[in-house]
Amino acid sequence: MITYPLGFEAAGIAAGLKPSGREDLALLVAPPGATAAGLFTTNRVQAAPVRLARERLGRTGGVARAVLVNSGQANAGTGERGLADAVATTDALAALLGCAPDEVLPCSTGVIGEPLPVEAIRRALPALVAARSPEGSAAFARAILTTDTVDKQAAAEADGYRVGGAAKGVGMVAPHLATMLAFVTTDAPVSAADLSVLADEALRPAFEAITVDGCTSTNDSVLLLASGAADGEPVVPGTPAWVALAGACRRVADELARRLIADAEGAEHVLIVDVEGAASERDAGRLARAVADSPLVKTAAFGRDPNPGRILQALGAAGVELDPTSIDVWIADVRVVEAGVIPPAYFGDDGLRASASAAMAGSEIPVRVRVGGGPGTARVLGCDLTYGYVRINGEYTT
Amino acid sequence: MITYPLGFEAAGIAAGLKPSGREDLALLVAPPGATAAGLFTTNRVQAAPVRLARERLGRTGGVARAVLVNSGQANAGTGERGLADAVATTDALAALLGCAPDEVLPCSTGVIGEPLPVEAIRRALPALVAARSPEGSAAFARAILTTDTVDKQAAAEADGYRVGGAAKGVGMVAPHLATMLAFVTTDAPVSAADLSVLADEALRPAFEAITVDGCTSTNDSVLLLASGAADGEPVVPGTPAWVALAGACRRVADELARRLIADAEGAEHVLIVDVEGAASERDAGRLARAVADSPLVKTAAFGRDPNPGRILQALGAAGVELDPTSIDVWIADVRVVEAGVIPPAYFGDDGLRASASAAMAGSEIPVRVRVGGGPGTARVLGCDLTYGYVRINGEYTT
Repeated sequence: MITYPLGFEAAGIAAGLKPSGREDLALLVAPPGATAAGLFTTNRVQAAPVRLARERLGRTGGVARAVLVNSGQANAGTGERGLADAVATTDALAALLGCAPDEVLPCSTGVIGEPLPVEAIRRALPALVAARSPEGSAAFARAILTTDTVDKQAAAEADGYRVGGAAKGVGMVAPHLATMLAFVTTDAPVSAADLSVLADEALRPAFEAITVDGCTSTNDSVLLLASGAADGEPVVPGTPAWVALAGACRRVADELARRLIADAEGAEHVLIVDVEGAASERDAGRLARAVADSPLVKTAAFGRDPNPGRILQALGAAGVELDPTSIDVWIADVRVVEAGVIPPAYFGDDGLRASASAAMAGSEIPVRVRVGGGPGTARVLGCDLTYGYVRINGEYTT
Repeated sequence: MITYPLGFEAAGIAAGLKPSGREDLALLVAPPGATAAGLFTTNRVQAAPVRLARERLGRTGGVARAVLVNSGQANAGTGERGLADAVATTDALAALLGCAPDEVLPCSTGVIGEPLPVEAIRRALPALVAARSPEGSAAFARAILTTDTVDKQAAAEADGYRVGGAAKGVGMVAPHLATMLAFVTTDAPVSAADLSVLADEALRPAFEAITVDGCTSTNDSVLLLASGAADGEPVVPGTPAWVALAGACRRVADELARRLIADAEGAEHVLIVDVEGAASERDAGRLARAVADSPLVKTAAFGRDPNPGRILQALGAAGVELDPTSIDVWIADVRVVEAGVIPPAYFGDDGLRASASAAMAGSEIPVRVRVGGGPGTARVLGCDLTYGYVRINGEYTT
């Protein structure tokens, strides 16, 4: 619901980029003076739209009028031609909107290596611009999808300001690289500099806490735009309004992240891994990620097998200093590791393994890990590894 | 063929540790004065036999008379009781063989958390000791297996010395943690101190270059034993005899590693990933491992989809400094990435993708990556991610 905040318009149309003929070109328009901040993939191989959006945000100092998203081609692994194509399509949009080219940010998702269909996009732009409206949220959310089975939208309100978001991931029609894109809007007035802080503080932790397969995309992008259309004084860090706005942004980001992971390729269970008692937040994050990314833990989750031995294995190999005798693990409320030892009752007939397995029947599996008495905590959302993941990524050889 | 070198005897019998009733207790006996060296898992959570074997090699300064291996129970996650159980069983064997307890090294593989069946093992030891013979290689190689579908043995000769080996991995009857055990013997006379160097130099690189699922076991152990039964002067580093012996050890280790990966859980293809031109050997190893461990690359290999975009993704996310425009990738002899770009011909009708896919039909898929002009090279052996892996690790919920 990216047009839920005041000042934004959106659209999504079919431009013939996807073989399926579905919507594949999306537009978000912000009012003049809107600020923007971006979080981008840390992959060393970065898609052309990622490089261009990052450059443009740098040149404008965090101002944007529009975001142009295409699904079907990732425009990654396309070299200098890919960069020229991203410039050509966004410049054409800028001319139609009457804004500076640097105020248009590109995002792409789809097959890696395929060139962007520049002419098809250029031909479709007038219709896309004409279709924009404050009711365009749903069309935008559909047009950014690839093999997603449902669109992902979220909204929240705080202190009179509205926050909206849309996201896509994970997977493609042809089995190329999964890509995560997320867009969050607000009508709160926030300066460009503060908006970067807000993105870092309220959005980064939510999206960095999800993992489908441990593979960082070449195209991952999170864009935050503030229209200021709610009027009032600029919202600045350290004020109650900031805290409320950051909270609303975090709720939208958390909701989008949860919707992404629930629709992850082939996933039948969401793994909610909480780690506490680590020496630092960074250590806790590594431990939680090691559990959520372990193929052995993920296949066990698919089979509703608590398998505490695999969780111990993943924790021990996480590259974090660890006292094995201080590890406790719970599946839901069943303690399956006590002070580093799998209790003998786990293998007995008194139902410890059976009750843990029963707790894995739902769509969400909570795994809680305590590794000592330190202050570090972290939560990572993952999913199980299923026949569906292998089918989606292995069977459709393109 | 661990008894191929002079001086060694081996045995393998069924002691009732595996529900299947197959051989599950194995013994390797070395002559008095034999030296020994071990390489152990780096997992912070280490099985009781790993802790005990490491301690004993430290106390004896690298001398061993026997190795006792059980399959069925990993004796990991079993706390102090697990350590006492490992001591009890190996001490009983030492009494039967008339050697010091510290000269017996334990290894275990199987279900994590289940206590070791100490009484069953003690009862079986006299029969095990009686069964030992210089022809015991095959029985030993069978008794260390879990869900392995074939036993893994190898032998080599160099400069008059013999080298033999046996290994097991990867998977279990019940889907608990995969474990890799390897045993290499030689009849060359090598001091304990030099034997550690030999293990590090000739065995470590071979076994560290294989990956099934990126999961480091709690039980991984590689033991190298030298009987000295070939007589002659001690073989010392820097001599032609050392180079020949190290070469033979490396050939045995490479052969065992290749047999392990070919029998990996559910694997239908072996991935041979070669990286060259990296800044260092360490960087090259990280890049090769990132490709071999990527679930997206592994599922693409299963589907015979060359998918260079996924290889670029894996390289870019490997945590290594990298110039994307200097990356070239070949599948067999088909160049699918040129200077960071997937050539337009890849997607065309001239068969670039088709010929790369055709090259993936065999049981081995060679992937060659060049990332610049640096001196660092590395090879990692991996395998594809298949329905079989999910079935073995997900479906049999124990």
